[in-house]
Amino acid sequence: MIIKNAMSVIPQKVEGVEGTEVRWVIDGNDGAPTFAMRIFDIQPGGYTPLHTHDWEHEVYVLEGECEATSAEGSKRAKAGDAVFVPGGELHQFRNTGGTLLRVMCLVPIVQSGGAACGK
Amino acid sequence: MIIKNAMSVIPQKVEGVEGTEVRWVIDGNDGAPTFAMRIFDIQPGGYTPLHTHDWEHEVYVLEGECEATSAEGSKRAKAGDAVFVPGGELHQFRNTGGTLLRVMCLVPIVQSGGAACGK
Repeated sequence: MIIKNAMSVIPQKVEGVEGTEVRWVIDGNDGAPTFAMRIFDIQPGGYTPLHTHDWEHEVYVLEGECEATSAEGSKRAKAGDAVFVPGGELHQFRNTGGTLLRVMCLVPIVQSGGAACGK
Repeated sequence: MIIKNAMSVIPQKVEGVEGTEVRWVIDGNDGAPTFAMRIFDIQPGGYTPLHTHDWEHEVYVLEGECEATSAEGSKRAKAGDAVFVPGGELHQFRNTGGTLLRVMCLVPIVQSGGAACGK
């Protein structure tokens, strides 16, 4: 059993986007075989890439609020909301609030290929 | 994209333990193919079963504090802590604080077999 404070994990910049850092909290380096837990910190005005890929996301908003965009348009999500993004769906998360947006975003390790470990 | 407030999911009693409810927030019913997101509410004095199984847990403490027990003994975990329980390891979470313990606990769908959906 591994116990760690999530904020003790060193954050990394996210390529190609502004105001966004990611912590790989639990991943292959911990022995996780199936899926990885990441936490994104997105500053006001910051965002994740508008993109699509074969694997799904399971997201939980820990702090703040955001605009979650898919091909169907944009919806609001706030602390305590969960978001499921199926594989193959266009998606983006944008901090449209005035405070930090902190979201947990989990991804499968097998389907995400090289994204198994952030460290 | 599915957005829902986690607390809008109807909680279920957990068999064989006291003071504990689970919400299956994202699972096979949402189309999740790889892993499921559950949130456990454990009242003061409540606990999850002391047990073991083949699949892993990825846990994040949302509120409160607990004693996390494995074969190596017990450690404390509190809000903001992440816990990785490898498959095959004995484990239990016990609310030893005076307030609600709310933990997110994710499990693989393939390895957990019939535990893919809580609803």
